[in-house]
Amino acid sequence: MTNNLSVESVWNDLQAIKVKSPLIHNITNYVVMNSTANALLALGASPIMAHAQEELEDLIGISNALVINIGTLSSYWIESMKIAIRLAKVRGIPIVMDPVGVGASRLRTQVAQELLKLGPPTVIRGNGSEILALTSDLVRTKGVDSTAASQSALDAARELVEHFSCTVVISGEIDLIVNKTGILKINNGHPIMTKVTGMGCAATTFVAAFNTINPSPLMASAHSMAVMGIAGEIAESRSSGPGSFPAAFLDSVYNLKKEDIQKHLRMNL
Amino acid sequence: MTNNLSVESVWNDLQAIKVKSPLIHNITNYVVMNSTANALLALGASPIMAHAQEELEDLIGISNALVINIGTLSSYWIESMKIAIRLAKVRGIPIVMDPVGVGASRLRTQVAQELLKLGPPTVIRGNGSEILALTSDLVRTKGVDSTAASQSALDAARELVEHFSCTVVISGEIDLIVNKTGILKINNGHPIMTKVTGMGCAATTFVAAFNTINPSPLMASAHSMAVMGIAGEIAESRSSGPGSFPAAFLDSVYNLKKEDIQKHLRMNL
Amino acid sequence: MTNNLSVESVWNDLQAIKVKSPLIHNITNYVVMNSTANALLALGASPIMAHAQEELEDLIGISNALVINIGTLSSYWIESMKIAIRLAKVRGIPIVMDPVGVGASRLRTQVAQELLKLGPPTVIRGNGSEILALTSDLVRTKGVDSTAASQSALDAARELVEHFSCTVVISGEIDLIVNKTGILKINNGHPIMTKVTGMGCAATTFVAAFNTINPSPLMASAHSMAVMGIAGEIAESRSSGPGSFPAAFLDSVYNLKKEDIQKHLRMNL
Repeated sequence: MTNNLSVESVWNDLQAIKVKSPLIHNITNYVVMNSTANALLALGASPIMAHAQEELEDLIGISNALVINIGTLSSYWIESMKIAIRLAKVRGIPIVMDPVGVGASRLRTQVAQELLKLGPPTVIRGNGSEILALTSDLVRTKGVDSTAASQSALDAARELVEHFSCTVVISGEIDLIVNKTGILKINNGHPIMTKVTGMGCAATTFVAAFNTINPSPLMASAHSMAVMGIAGEIAESRSSGPGSFPAAFLDSVYNLKKEDIQKHLRMNL
Repeated sequence: MTNNLSVESVWNDLQAIKVKSPLIHNITNYVVMNSTANALLALGASPIMAHAQEELEDLIGISNALVINIGTLSSYWIESMKIAIRLAKVRGIPIVMDPVGVGASRLRTQVAQELLKLGPPTVIRGNGSEILALTSDLVRTKGVDSTAASQSALDAARELVEHFSCTVVISGEIDLIVNKTGILKINNGHPIMTKVTGMGCAATTFVAAFNTINPSPLMASAHSMAVMGIAGEIAESRSSGPGSFPAAFLDSVYNLKKEDIQKHLRMNL
Repeated sequence: MTNNLSVESVWNDLQAIKVKSPLIHNITNYVVMNSTANALLALGASPIMAHAQEELEDLIGISNALVINIGTLSSYWIESMKIAIRLAKVRGIPIVMDPVGVGASRLRTQVAQELLKLGPPTVIRGNGSEILALTSDLVRTKGVDSTAASQSALDAARELVEHFSCTVVISGEIDLIVNKTGILKINNGHPIMTKVTGMGCAATTFVAAFNTINPSPLMASAHSMAVMGIAGEIAESRSSGPGSFPAAFLDSVYNLKKEDIQKHLRMNL
């Protein structure tokens, strides 16, 4: 099954998102709320961003997936995340966690680990140093844009997979998607994507959207990283820097054609 | 009076905003704060976004209109909205309410109805399902981008007009502006506007800006929806998708010419 | 020393930022979090935006400068700002304060003055009316985009310099950078920059980034205002209004060449 990733499989899921327009509930950080909402809309999904504890039951009751992103924490929001995870678990909808900046502060590491234990997510998506920090508090990352040696991050991902029976996406030059059934690699994207805030957060919410469509978290997550990376490559070729890139990225996601996937998809190399 | 809407009347109000540069106080959601502020600046108005209860008296004391947008609620912000409405009522400045996502959660429906009773706004602007949900808690909307059958929404708008002596704007393929003096229809805009977050919120703050200029809420609101829709059509023709659309929209608002209004305005059809 | 400002000195600092990629901790307002993060990334620096009091010690412990921006205050955030300033003082890293909207409410004036007394910043950056309001509560500014007569603002800046031994940047048609060692003037920029929210906030965070590189706050601040203004001029020539300007601005910052500085820099005229 892990080798079924193909142009066809990416394209089919992308079309299914446009048809179904899944509703993705995001408890995310202030920095990327706007860009994340627009990313979901460009993909064909529907965003909700809400954190009020009094309305989580209603909103998650109509949502198809939950995104938890710890980029700008505070005590009320942490409690909202816990409530949301419990509700999503009861409903059985996919939960995707983005441990932004884990390792940069003890609070982030502690909160992320607590949330993992409370209700293991379907997928965890982070960069190498974030994934590493989830399994150890010895690593101090430099903010939210760090990378870590890929082998140690992969080991950490496997530890998380083992412990929480989840899928882990390590974003990087090559994206690794890991779970008990195997490992997939997506070799798309462009370095300019590290010069724009919120691209990782967009990837996380794409993972959530694809997981509402495809029952295999491994495949769904690989598809979302492929779409991210391919749209990123096309956008880079049509933009002049990190300023014009985000608009070009959303346009590319929105206008993505099967031929684009055919031309750009590089996987399992 | 309800038939006085014309290219000239839209243009005159638009020019008056640029001259007067009204200060619009927004208590709005995290997702659209940046895009709303930029929309007001492009229009020629001045934005304030602030929610601290200790400064509302000072800030509303220098503002020309108040926008209340319930997109990302929490208890402190709800209280700030109540204080702001009371202050705006005392000063007699226009209040425009955007009941984002009403019907999607009981909290939103309850808060919106409470705010309406506290101090009826000059104008309520929402999409069909939001307007419908304001008059009934039987409707559950799917997030914030829903539509509802236009006849039932129009009936709901009339009920709100009757009960709160306000003007209601129902955004949609055709925008309906309704109050006791009549009904106006604006048939501008483009579907791409539903693929970008915050276009409805921008419309709401435009309604506020125009209501500082024109004493008729019906005319002012119709003018703002006309400018939104016309700028949206021009922007769509100059952009490649929902990514490049927002910048093109702001440019179009900023550069809007009388000839553009002449060419595009479609009303009361 | 105050006359050493040159194309070379601007360029050298800009290159040093790209090499060192300083980590800038921002406690800033909701409106500009995304645009500020992207501005720092385009410049070559790394942004952190976080306000949770439990993690400030860890995060400021790895940061190279602190930005305090009071654009959207609330009591928790005010306390976070105080904690952050104390931590930054202990570490001896540059602190840059942006007194957004000071003078528009008594809360802002009071909080800004309290923060100044708590731990004088390395640099204060504001527009004329904000700088004026910091020394007097008699001035009521109109929101956040006001200007004030340059002579009275300059007098106010000198008072702040005297009292807090800091550097003051007055943004305006001509930017004035003032401290005990002298005064520098940057005559770059374009009026369109007043039609986009967050340009002042970007300037503030650029000042922070340059102050991690250059030990002279006067020179560092002048360099940052020169880069802001030059990138703004280039961006204006490549954009069609306030909508397309921000992307063009970030692209210009990212792609800025020594020849651009050579061609555009206008100083001390």
